[in-house]
Amino acid sequence: MQTPHGSVETPAFMPVGTQGAVKGVTHRDLDDLGAQIILGNTYHLFLRPGDGLIARAGGLHKFIGWDRPILTDSGGYQIFSLADRRRVSEDGAEFQSHLDGSRHLLTPERATDVQAQLGSDIAMVLDECIATPADDTAARAAMERSVRWAGRARRRLLQLRGDDPDPAVTVTNPGQAQFGIIQGGVHHALRTESVQATVEIGFEAYAIGGLSVGEPPEVTYDLVGHTAPQLPEDRPRYLMGSGMPDDLIECVARGVDLFDCVLPTRNARNGQLLTRTGPIAIRNTRYAEDPAPPDPGCGCYTCRHFSRAYLRHLYVAREMAAATLNTLHNLYFYLDTMRAVRKAIMSGTFDKLRSEFHQTFSRRSQH
Amino acid sequence: MQTPHGSVETPAFMPVGTQGAVKGVTHRDLDDLGAQIILGNTYHLFLRPGDGLIARAGGLHKFIGWDRPILTDSGGYQIFSLADRRRVSEDGAEFQSHLDGSRHLLTPERATDVQAQLGSDIAMVLDECIATPADDTAARAAMERSVRWAGRARRRLLQLRGDDPDPAVTVTNPGQAQFGIIQGGVHHALRTESVQATVEIGFEAYAIGGLSVGEPPEVTYDLVGHTAPQLPEDRPRYLMGSGMPDDLIECVARGVDLFDCVLPTRNARNGQLLTRTGPIAIRNTRYAEDPAPPDPGCGCYTCRHFSRAYLRHLYVAREMAAATLNTLHNLYFYLDTMRAVRKAIMSGTFDKLRSEFHQTFSRRSQH
Repeated sequence: MQTPHGSVETPAFMPVGTQGAVKGVTHRDLDDLGAQIILGNTYHLFLRPGDGLIARAGGLHKFIGWDRPILTDSGGYQIFSLADRRRVSEDGAEFQSHLDGSRHLLTPERATDVQAQLGSDIAMVLDECIATPADDTAARAAMERSVRWAGRARRRLLQLRGDDPDPAVTVTNPGQAQFGIIQGGVHHALRTESVQATVEIGFEAYAIGGLSVGEPPEVTYDLVGHTAPQLPEDRPRYLMGSGMPDDLIECVARGVDLFDCVLPTRNARNGQLLTRTGPIAIRNTRYAEDPAPPDPGCGCYTCRHFSRAYLRHLYVAREMAAATLNTLHNLYFYLDTMRAVRKAIMSGTFDKLRSEFHQTFSRRSQH
Repeated sequence: MQTPHGSVETPAFMPVGTQGAVKGVTHRDLDDLGAQIILGNTYHLFLRPGDGLIARAGGLHKFIGWDRPILTDSGGYQIFSLADRRRVSEDGAEFQSHLDGSRHLLTPERATDVQAQLGSDIAMVLDECIATPADDTAARAAMERSVRWAGRARRRLLQLRGDDPDPAVTVTNPGQAQFGIIQGGVHHALRTESVQATVEIGFEAYAIGGLSVGEPPEVTYDLVGHTAPQLPEDRPRYLMGSGMPDDLIECVARGVDLFDCVLPTRNARNGQLLTRTGPIAIRNTRYAEDPAPPDPGCGCYTCRHFSRAYLRHLYVAREMAAATLNTLHNLYFYLDTMRAVRKAIMSGTFDKLRSEFHQTFSRRSQH
């Protein structure tokens, strides 16, 4: 995948840098880990420090000192999951900041403007997120509104790119791509309709939204297997917010190219470390004197230098190094898995990797 | 200075790794920064995870995965500053853990045993710390008790080193050195007596304790200037718990070789960054759109890559990266200052460096 800040090998996992930083690590760590692209959250950056300030600094890349690709979401998901007192109308989503209660309106156009000011390499359209499970009527209404919003977002971007841009909006990355988002809940027919209508509008590429929101993995896999193959073959397909390592493997098998998820970083801060056989909870007493690294087969900095006993001590003692070392390990696990997946695809051995992965990995905690 | 885990160029600054980790950074960062020795706190490690567990892991170096020199304090200072309900008698210091209220007795012998089990390269004797300012009577009593305790600690170490060690104590670093500590408050005569009595007992080297505890800098400098020159010239002299960068320069001028201090790391977590002209408080609104690095003349990772505006955002947003990037900078400032000091001493230009440093540096916050 080509972007104004360089290319990304796919399938790729994007670490989440919510407020312009991936929690627990520095950009240098991300470089060392081989992260080729990170994700920033428009909702957070819009509220603090603000897209205007970031635009005046020359855009998000310059502001945060990261010169590789960045994808920003639209802010919609956080409005539905984090903001206070949200009210959604055809115009857009009104909400109160979870930080200071200030009131804001995010429309499809405004979400496009904010991301134009941030200057991410990939911007997402604002879509309507709804609680799941939703009945067919609610899912249809949200899907159809998302399509209308997608159209408005696209028109706005084309205006910003064109001869009559808005002087109030500083486009800090003229090569920014915009991805449409497929909605439709767990309903196959709605997903198909959403694909057709969204592809008809025409975006640089497309994402599958509204999944990985608590439904069982088989439901995710089924809907991804239904939706991804309908999306243009020559464009990257992005499954938003997913998932555990086995989810990534299964969704790659169904045609997905891009993933993002807070699990490796958030779980690291909660003391959950991934291994080839599954996650372990490092606070467990059984690790108090365990001299083995978290995952004996792992080549990350943490596993090459530190024991479970030390990592447990750091976690129990609430040392910052616990979060850092655990995050380094979990991100390495994700990024290294994706490296192995890419290599296997190139050499025609992906099916073998997929079956071997499932033979050893269990998403249930190991102890 | 030679130790079982390699040599240390002096004068040296030792970052404080209280619980077996320097807050905000990883060992790899410390390597990159050029830290040649770190300090561990016996009080904390004794309570959690315990010197027994660390001894079974092969000692502190193995347990924490750090193979360069480590100095451990005796635990005395934390008993006086952190523990609950302490009671000091000739036998030792009884206290309750600040973690769980459990009761413990730390005697000069026990402090020696604990550090023998930790296996640091340099162990400190248990001394009696008192509140300052103390009158001559209280200061004399504490100094004389510290001398008696130093004698007991030395006898215990020689026993552990000798033919009749205690089978209950695992000596994990047979080459461990033990430093005596000079006390005597702000009283010149008491300091001199303490030097004579402590040197008479005979240790590998000596530290100046009981300073940097809130007295004005001129008082510190005066007492260091009085005490340090009386200590053996062929042994490193360690000023415990000091200080700001200008303190280090002034005390090097008075003959000190080793320093430790929590200020660079603690202040970093509180958003205070050191510059050639003095500390700045990064949360200040004036930095909200400041594209300059914290210290334009600095070569650290933080200054080479990030702006004050970004660091302020990270601090205000309470991102972990704020603590990490600020700590990297402040430690670099200390370690780089000590590198410059060593170089100046070798080339005979220390007086010039000292006067230039004071011309630009003010310990008062710059804004």
